Amino acid sequence: MRYLPGEAQRLPGNATALADYQASHFLFHVARGVATVTLNRPERKNPLTFESYAELRDLFRALACAQDVKAIVVTGAGENFCSGGDVHDIIGPLTRLDMPGLLAFTRMTGDLVKAMRACPQPVVAAVDGICAGAGAILALASDLRLATARSKTAFLFTRVGLAGCDMGACALLPRVIGQGRAAELLYTGRSMSGAEGERWGFFNSLHEPHALAGAAQALAQSLADGPTFAHGMTKKMLQQEWNMGVDEAIEAEAQAQAICMATNDFHRAYHAFVAKQKPAFEGD
Amino acid sequence: MRYLPGEAQRLPGNATALADYQASHFLFHVARGVATVTLNRPERKNPLTFESYAELRDLFRALACAQDVKAIVVTGAGENFCSGGDVHDIIGPLTRLDMPGLLAFTRMTGDLVKAMRACPQPVVAAVDGICAGAGAILALASDLRLATARSKTAFLFTRVGLAGCDMGACALLPRVIGQGRAAELLYTGRSMSGAEGERWGFFNSLHEPHALAGAAQALAQSLADGPTFAHGMTKKMLQQEWNMGVDEAIEAEAQAQAICMATNDFHRAYHAFVAKQKPAFEGD
Amino acid sequence: MRYLPGEAQRLPGNATALADYQASHFLFHVARGVATVTLNRPERKNPLTFESYAELRDLFRALACAQDVKAIVVTGAGENFCSGGDVHDIIGPLTRLDMPGLLAFTRMTGDLVKAMRACPQPVVAAVDGICAGAGAILALASDLRLATARSKTAFLFTRVGLAGCDMGACALLPRVIGQGRAAELLYTGRSMSGAEGERWGFFNSLHEPHALAGAAQALAQSLADGPTFAHGMTKKMLQQEWNMGVDEAIEAEAQAQAICMATNDFHRAYHAFVAKQKPAFEGD
Repeated sequence: MRYLPGEAQRLPGNATALADYQASHFLFHVARGVATVTLNRPERKNPLTFESYAELRDLFRALACAQDVKAIVVTGAGENFCSGGDVHDIIGPLTRLDMPGLLAFTRMTGDLVKAMRACPQPVVAAVDGICAGAGAILALASDLRLATARSKTAFLFTRVGLAGCDMGACALLPRVIGQGRAAELLYTGRSMSGAEGERWGFFNSLHEPHALAGAAQALAQSLADGPTFAHGMTKKMLQQEWNMGVDEAIEAEAQAQAICMATNDFHRAYHAFVAKQKPAFEGD
Repeated sequence: MRYLPGEAQRLPGNATALADYQASHFLFHVARGVATVTLNRPERKNPLTFESYAELRDLFRALACAQDVKAIVVTGAGENFCSGGDVHDIIGPLTRLDMPGLLAFTRMTGDLVKAMRACPQPVVAAVDGICAGAGAILALASDLRLATARSKTAFLFTRVGLAGCDMGACALLPRVIGQGRAAELLYTGRSMSGAEGERWGFFNSLHEPHALAGAAQALAQSLADGPTFAHGMTKKMLQQEWNMGVDEAIEAEAQAQAICMATNDFHRAYHAFVAKQKPAFEGD
Repeated sequence: MRYLPGEAQRLPGNATALADYQASHFLFHVARGVATVTLNRPERKNPLTFESYAELRDLFRALACAQDVKAIVVTGAGENFCSGGDVHDIIGPLTRLDMPGLLAFTRMTGDLVKAMRACPQPVVAAVDGICAGAGAILALASDLRLATARSKTAFLFTRVGLAGCDMGACALLPRVIGQGRAAELLYTGRSMSGAEGERWGFFNSLHEPHALAGAAQALAQSLADGPTFAHGMTKKMLQQEWNMGVDEAIEAEAQAQAICMATNDFHRAYHAFVAKQKPAFEGD
C-alpha cells in the first residue's frame, strides 16, 4: 500500500508548535496564531494526490496539539480552490487496487475529515474558482466558508461512477443546506454557484476575488483572538451533539459551559466589561 | 381489516421486471428505465384511497427487485398532484375503526414511505396544483422535488383534528426545510407556495406548468442513465447516516465508497475520461 | 446555592389552572387559552436574573399540567425582547462560584429549555429589538418565532469568554438555520438581523413593530383553538424523533397518529366536514 504515504514521522506528533513546519505538498505558514494551508498546483487547479491527502491528514492531527495555532484558513493558489482527487494520480491507480487497498484509501480520505472536525481550531475555507470532488469536501468539512460569486462547487463523485457518500458528504451536506438540496447535488454532481451557496447556507458570505483572502484572514484572526478555549468547546459540542436527543444535548452543554465558566478567560471578560474595556483573552 | 387490501399477490414480489405491470389504482408505465406513477382521479384532485395506498406500498416494495427501473417519477393527472386521503373514502371509515384497525392503517401508510426510502431508485416528484395531506408526504418522501409556482403544498392533518406526525413528517420535513419552518407548516396546516418551497429547499426547482413533466422526465432520465449502482448507494447512505455520529458516518462512507470503487462503472468512467469520451454506465 | 431560588412552592405544581398565577419576576396573564409571558425590565432591555430564570423554569414545568393554557406567547416589554443574563446580577456572581455551583446554574438554565420543549403547548416568541445571549435561546427554544426587521438576535456567549454551547444552542440552532450559519453565529457572536433571520428560517415571519404583538397573539390564538391534543402530539414527536432513524420515526408516528385518530376531536372534524361546518375542537 505504497499509495498511503505517512507524513507523520515528519510532523512532530505531540509537538506544541507548528510555526516552523515545512510542508511538502502544499504551502503552510503561521502568523499571529492563524495557520494558512494553501493547495498549490495552480496549473492543475490544485488537485489532491495520495501524498497531499496523507500530509493534510497528518497536519490536522498534529494541529490538535499545536499551541501556536488558534485558527486555520484553507485555500487554493491561483484563483481556484481545489479540483479534487487527480484523475491520473488517484483515479487511475485506484482502478488497480484490491478491496483492502480501496478501503485503506477511502479510510485515509475520511480520516482527513475526521481530523479537521477533531482539531479544536475553527477552520475557515476561502473558496474561489473550482471547488470539486474532494475539494468540495474540504470546504464542507470546514467550520466556516467564504467564497466568490464565480466559485463553482461540485460533489462530482457520480461523474466517475461513484456514489455521493464520500468522506462524510451524506452526513454533513444535508445538515448544512438541507436534505433536498444535498440530494440534488450528490445525485447529479452539478455545480452549485456562489450565489446558490450563499442562499442555501453553504457559504457564510461572498466576496470579490481580490478581497477573499483578506476576509478569510480577518475572520480567522478574530477567532484566533479568542476566547480560544471556548471556541474549541463550541466546535467539540457541535460535533458531539450531532446525534444526541435534545435533553441529552442540554445536559452535555450544561457540563461543557460550566467548564468554560471555570476558565480565566471568563473572568477576564467580566472584569474587562466592568472596567468598560475590551477583554484580552489568553486561552486558559 | 378489509380496508387493507393486499396487491402483493398481483405484483411479482421478486420479479426482476416491472415494465408490464398493470396498475389498478393509478397509471404506471416504464420507458427507458424511468417508471412513471401518475395518480389519476383528476376530478377529485387525485385523492388516495385504502386501495391506492396499498398498491403504492406494494409497488415500491417490488421496485427494490426490479432490474428494468432505474429512476421513478411520481406525479398527478390534470394539473394537481394529490389531495391526500379522501375524506369520504378514508376519514369516514377511520372514525369507525378500533385501535388495532387504526394502527394497521397508520402502519400501512408509513410502510409506503418506508418502501419509497428503501428502494434503490431515486424518486422525483413532479408537483403542480394541490399537494395536500398524504400527498404532501408523497412529495416529501421523494428524493427530489420539482414544482410549479402555482403549486400549493399543505400538511393539513391538523385541519382534521390530527397531529403533524404522519408518515414520518416530523422526522423528514425539519431536515428538508429546517425545524422552525417545519413546525409552522405542521402546527398550522397552512399552504406553502411554490416560491416558498423553492426558497426553503423543499423544491429543487420551479417550472412552467407545461414544462414540469418534461423537466421531471429529463431529470429522472439523467439519473437512470447511471451510474445506477452508485445512485442506489447514495440513497442508501443518505438514509443510513440519518442519525449516526459524524465519525461513524465517515467510516460507513469509507466502506460504501470502497464497494463502489470495485464496480465496473467506476472503471468505465476512468477509461472514458482517459479516452476523452462520455462514460456509458451499465449498473454493475 | 442561594442563587437558585425555587419558585415551585409558589406555583401549584400539579394544579390544572394557571390563570390566577401571580408572577414575581415577569408579567403573566392568560386570556382565551393563551398565556402571555412578558419579560419586564424595559429600562435594562429585559435581562434575566437568577430569580427570573428559576421562575420561568418552574412556570413552564407547571404549564405541563395546566388545563387552561393551550398556547403561550413569550415577549419583552418596551421594544426589546431580552438582553440575556445580566452582567452584574449573573456574570459577576458566577465568577465567584465553585464547580458544583457553576453546574447547578448551567443545569438550571438548561432545565428552562427542557421545560419549554416538554410542555405540550406550542410556544410563540415575539421578538423586537435586542434578543441576546440567553434571550436568543428563549427565542430558539420556542416553537415558532415572529419578529421585526429591526430585531437583533445574537448568541453572544463568546463575548464573555464562553462557548456557544449554552442551553442547547449547538443542538437546536443548526437544525433551525443549518450547520454553517449556526457555526458562524455561535463562534462570532455577531447579530443576526431580522431579514437574515427570516431568510434563514429562524423567524417564521416579520412584522411592523406595532403589529408584532397582535400577530403573535393571533397565531397563538389559532393554535389554542385546537386541535390542542394533536398539537401537543406534534410537539412531542418533533422532540421525540430528533435523533431517531427514519424507519423508527415512521413507526413512532404510526403509533402517535393512531392515538390521535381515537380522539373525539378527530371525529368532530370529520362530522363538521360532512356538515360543511368549521369544527369546534375541545381537546379530548
